[in-house]
Amino acid sequence: MTAPFSFAVKARDGAARTGVIDTPRGIIRTPAFMPVGTGATVKAMFPEDVAATGADIILGNTYHLMLRPGAERVAKLGGLHAFMHWQKPILTDSGGFQVMSLAKLRRITEEGVTFQSHLDGATINLTPERAIEVQCLLGSDIQMVLDECTPFPATRDEAKRSLDLSMRWAARSKAAFGEMSAPGQALFGIVQGSVYPDLREESARGLMEIGFPGYAVGGLAVGEGQETMFDMVAMTTAILPEDRPRYLMGVGTPQDMLGAIERGIDMFDCVMPTRSGRHCQAFTWAGKLNLRNARYAEDPSPLDPESQCPAAQYERAYLHHLVKSGETLGAMLLTYANVQFYQELMARTREAIGQGRFAAFAEDVRRRYATSGEED
Amino acid sequence: MTAPFSFAVKARDGAARTGVIDTPRGIIRTPAFMPVGTGATVKAMFPEDVAATGADIILGNTYHLMLRPGAERVAKLGGLHAFMHWQKPILTDSGGFQVMSLAKLRRITEEGVTFQSHLDGATINLTPERAIEVQCLLGSDIQMVLDECTPFPATRDEAKRSLDLSMRWAARSKAAFGEMSAPGQALFGIVQGSVYPDLREESARGLMEIGFPGYAVGGLAVGEGQETMFDMVAMTTAILPEDRPRYLMGVGTPQDMLGAIERGIDMFDCVMPTRSGRHCQAFTWAGKLNLRNARYAEDPSPLDPESQCPAAQYERAYLHHLVKSGETLGAMLLTYANVQFYQELMARTREAIGQGRFAAFAEDVRRRYATSGEED
Repeated sequence: MTAPFSFAVKARDGAARTGVIDTPRGIIRTPAFMPVGTGATVKAMFPEDVAATGADIILGNTYHLMLRPGAERVAKLGGLHAFMHWQKPILTDSGGFQVMSLAKLRRITEEGVTFQSHLDGATINLTPERAIEVQCLLGSDIQMVLDECTPFPATRDEAKRSLDLSMRWAARSKAAFGEMSAPGQALFGIVQGSVYPDLREESARGLMEIGFPGYAVGGLAVGEGQETMFDMVAMTTAILPEDRPRYLMGVGTPQDMLGAIERGIDMFDCVMPTRSGRHCQAFTWAGKLNLRNARYAEDPSPLDPESQCPAAQYERAYLHHLVKSGETLGAMLLTYANVQFYQELMARTREAIGQGRFAAFAEDVRRRYATSGEED
Repeated sequence: MTAPFSFAVKARDGAARTGVIDTPRGIIRTPAFMPVGTGATVKAMFPEDVAATGADIILGNTYHLMLRPGAERVAKLGGLHAFMHWQKPILTDSGGFQVMSLAKLRRITEEGVTFQSHLDGATINLTPERAIEVQCLLGSDIQMVLDECTPFPATRDEAKRSLDLSMRWAARSKAAFGEMSAPGQALFGIVQGSVYPDLREESARGLMEIGFPGYAVGGLAVGEGQETMFDMVAMTTAILPEDRPRYLMGVGTPQDMLGAIERGIDMFDCVMPTRSGRHCQAFTWAGKLNLRNARYAEDPSPLDPESQCPAAQYERAYLHHLVKSGETLGAMLLTYANVQFYQELMARTREAIGQGRFAAFAEDVRRRYATSGEED
């Protein structure tokens, strides 16, 4: 018998919560950070090392996977988990966000979005139904409704029109998911509404009426600034049901995540730890470091003595040498250490919430990141 | 008490031998293949994975390391082993070969070679004494004399003049090594002489007179063709002492190595498994594969079911996707699988020699590589 999808909050500390999402492929401890595995790989990491960092779930990008290698091909090869050697849960986005940011000649209609592949120019239709079909072909455990990620800035009218379309697509997505999904899979709705509190509320309530086992907050971290993002998050989580996980899409820095957790968010994804790792940046318990900096050329100390990550035990002088030389191993080690730092940050966060000392913990991390020798 | 450097032949099969080199940092089972760790990293591999392939020793390039990060810096940071997290033996070349192939404005005199760094144009002097000093600063377990790698083709006169210079440099290298080396370290001489048997003999006998604990055969695999290379190897090993390891530099393909082992060679290094791994090529027990080939797009079989390598268990369809997408993980997995294939080839070779069935084994491998769907 396959276990259903469920979520239970285990402890609260202010608006912050820690809990467990249960899926047929394993549990997801929240707050959770999902490393991004865009094209069926968390870039520059072996899948077993991703698991070793403590990640309970990764994210796959529907847009990239439907273009290459193709959803039907992945299904033929046993689904995304088997294909990429990752047996724990996978969340996939709907593809909508990347259609907006990567594809050429986009045209949005009531039916869906038509675009040209950035890879070969092929014309592709993505409807709410096709987005669900693709995610089901991939075998995704947590799927996302197709929505229009409202551009920023947007007038109130633009945001409203976009929101209304997304709401109709959300209903169609849910209907399609009901037809196609497997037991234990879940579909999340996505709250839009730009920076307009009344539209955010309308979006949240509309989605709750349709009814989803989890809700994402989308369309943030797109240039509106941290304060506005936090305001939108706080007012949205105040509306969303207590017993459903809340996922802030595409966020973020340690400081952004801590602020969002403080406002009731449970899940995150972001390319930051992996992309930074390929660009000489390290997230450590002593703050952010740029390993290209000459100050590390003869620094014999480990990258992060406070981390449990095997990669963080490598000396800064060696990492400096590797990144200066453009060696792949530099990107491999920094990516590994960064992904593990993000997981350790979530683990300590969960512990702090459980012990009712989250505010002090978050303040400590903010201080480390404020006083660190950051040198982007 | 530090164990000295020693070599013992354990079994013979024709001219092929299997044995053990004993060093203070561990044993080297021969025939041995040394993965190349040019700039203090075997490209795209974690050092623990290099060890996991069964490699007993790796090679470091003196030329690259003296330019970046610099030998004095490596020494200050505890030596090359600590720097790159590799505790088993390291062999370093003298730097001479790369001076010829990479540096600008080379000028060779009796004293040594002056060149401009390919990285920053700095003028650098490399003498036999400095080559040894650099290798001792790195802490190399097996060091090589500075020689002039005779260009190919070379007239007999050019080859003779080059050989004489290399011989004087070999004597100076040994004297310097006597001054600077640590207990248990070894210095190998290098036989030159281009494709002229009498010069090869003169070189081998001259070096034996100076006396080294091991001998390399240099200046081959530079365009002379496999038959000529094998002839030079055979006539040289017939002269070299039976009780010293013989190292064929810069070789090679599985077929080249098997032919050289058949002619009495004990050690190899080559960038082929690592470089090929970054260029979509896989060495497997079924032959060489090019993973970019569309025939693998939906091939659900593991890269190499006959290999024990974890990386070789990944499906060809997935590897095809990774290399087509330019994903780092593709290079990581293929490099790992290739380095392990080379080690498994050496392990099976040692076993076959020990059991007196090397000729049949080599023939079987040649057949696999002849009939494989190679598609460079």
